[in-house]
Order: sequence, then structure tokens, then C-alpha cells
Amino acid sequence: MVDILHRIGVTSSPDDVYAALTTVDGLANWWTEDTDGDANLGGVIRFRFVPGGFDMKVLEAQPAERVLWEVVDGPEEWIGTQVRFELKQEDDFTIVLFRHEGWKEPGEFMYHCSTKWATFLMSLKRLVETGEGEPAPRDVAISNWH
Amino acid sequence: MVDILHRIGVTSSPDDVYAALTTVDGLANWWTEDTDGDANLGGVIRFRFVPGGFDMKVLEAQPAERVLWEVVDGPEEWIGTQVRFELKQEDDFTIVLFRHEGWKEPGEFMYHCSTKWATFLMSLKRLVETGEGEPAPRDVAISNWH
Repeated sequence: MVDILHRIGVTSSPDDVYAALTTVDGLANWWTEDTDGDANLGGVIRFRFVPGGFDMKVLEAQPAERVLWEVVDGPEEWIGTQVRFELKQEDDFTIVLFRHEGWKEPGEFMYHCSTKWATFLMSLKRLVETGEGEPAPRDVAISNWH
Repeated sequence: MVDILHRIGVTSSPDDVYAALTTVDGLANWWTEDTDGDANLGGVIRFRFVPGGFDMKVLEAQPAERVLWEVVDGPEEWIGTQVRFELKQEDDFTIVLFRHEGWKEPGEFMYHCSTKWATFLMSLKRLVETGEGEPAPRDVAISNWH
């Protein structure tokens, strides 16, 4: 099992970051504009991109502390993996510890997803700090796989 | 042992990307301006940042294909780890498969380094594509740890 790890700091409150992770409106403004479903505990959120998408079941949602999703539909490599956001305050920042865990093997798609997650987390940071993120389809292109 | 993985695509030739990975001038223009040493096979390259830096021994340098460094000095978590860049052509892109491997455990500093590597690799992409990267100290701030 291998994991993707990231850490960003957002100069805003944990509540603001939590809202961007647990509302369809928030998620649509940093990850993909084509987001719908139920972002509450036990709900399933549908994230869509031009080539496909991901359905995430919300396993944990602890205000200002933790969000945990399980991938219930999407690319084969993603199904059954979990996406975790841990929030904490440090200096004037809300620190987001991100972990996409449970990949079966480190194939090339995992390399790609790791870098894409970094750019989407920077989009989350920008959204919460400035009100304007860079969700798909306006996301930063990193390669031929977009 | 845990690894950091990334994948970017650069719209330029593998030779151009290889040059940015194997010359002090190239490295100084995407990772940190304060770079010196010997970037040739068997040499040691010194990368410095405001809080400290890394010394990398060049273990492999296969033109347009592969660069492998071993961390011989730097933060304790980095010493003995290896940094690998594999290059290949795909569509109109030079694909860079990046792997910083051999971390003993996934501590918070590793989360941070994963995200920083992503932003530095985007700096490498920008340098090769446009002639202008974002090396330290002009690098993108991602958190309170910079």
C-alpha cells in the first residue's frame, strides 16, 4: 500500500477551510466545477472532469478537524482508496495534512495524481484566502494528461 | 520505506529538460538560486535555502533519460534518501517521472516536501518552457514552513 501526502497552510480559520471541504459549493470552487451530490456525513459526492470522475462517500466529517472520504466509484486504481484531510491551527495558518491512502501500487497514474493533488490543494488555499480557486476545467495543466 | 512521487510533462525536448537537471545554471533557475558544486557524474551539488540545504551526490546521469542523486548532507530525514528523475517522450511532451525515495517514515516534514517538490517541478516546467522558473527565494509559498 502506498500513499500520496501533502501539506499546505491556509491563512484563514479552520472553519473556513472545513467549509471548503464539506459543501458542494466549496468543493466546486477548488476541485471541479462539476460537483454535486451530498457532502454530509454518509452522503456521496460526485466529482466530474472531462475524462471521467470520482464518487466519494463521506466517512468522517469532524468540524474544523477532519474529513475522510472513501472512493466508491471512479478509475480502478482509486476505488477503495481513502482521501483524508486533517486540519489544525499553527501560527496564523490552518494547516491541512492531506493523505490519499491505500493505492495498491505506485503506477504512473499515481505519480500524476500526486502532482495534480498538489495543484488542487494550492487551488483550495487560493479559494479560501482570496475567494477565487482554480477548479477544473480551469485547473493548472501539468502534462499531456492535463 | 515511503516515497514521494510526481509526474509532469514539459513541452520541450528531453535534452532541454536533462540540461535543467544536470547543470548548476539549470538547477539554479528552477530549484534554488543558491546552487553550486559539481553537477557531473560523481560530483556533489550543494543546494542552499534560507533555512538550510541539501548536498546531493550524482549517482547516475544518463543523457535525456535519467538522473539519480543521493542526499549526502541535509536534514536528517533526507540523508540517505535518493531523488530520481526519469525522462521519456510522449506526444509533444517530455515526461518527467520524479521519485524521492527511501524516507524512513511519513512524518509531517515529508508531507511538506511532497507539496514543495510539486511546486518546484512546476517551476522546472516553466523554466524549460518559458526561460523563467520560480527558484528559491522566489518560490511559491505553500504554508508557514514556506
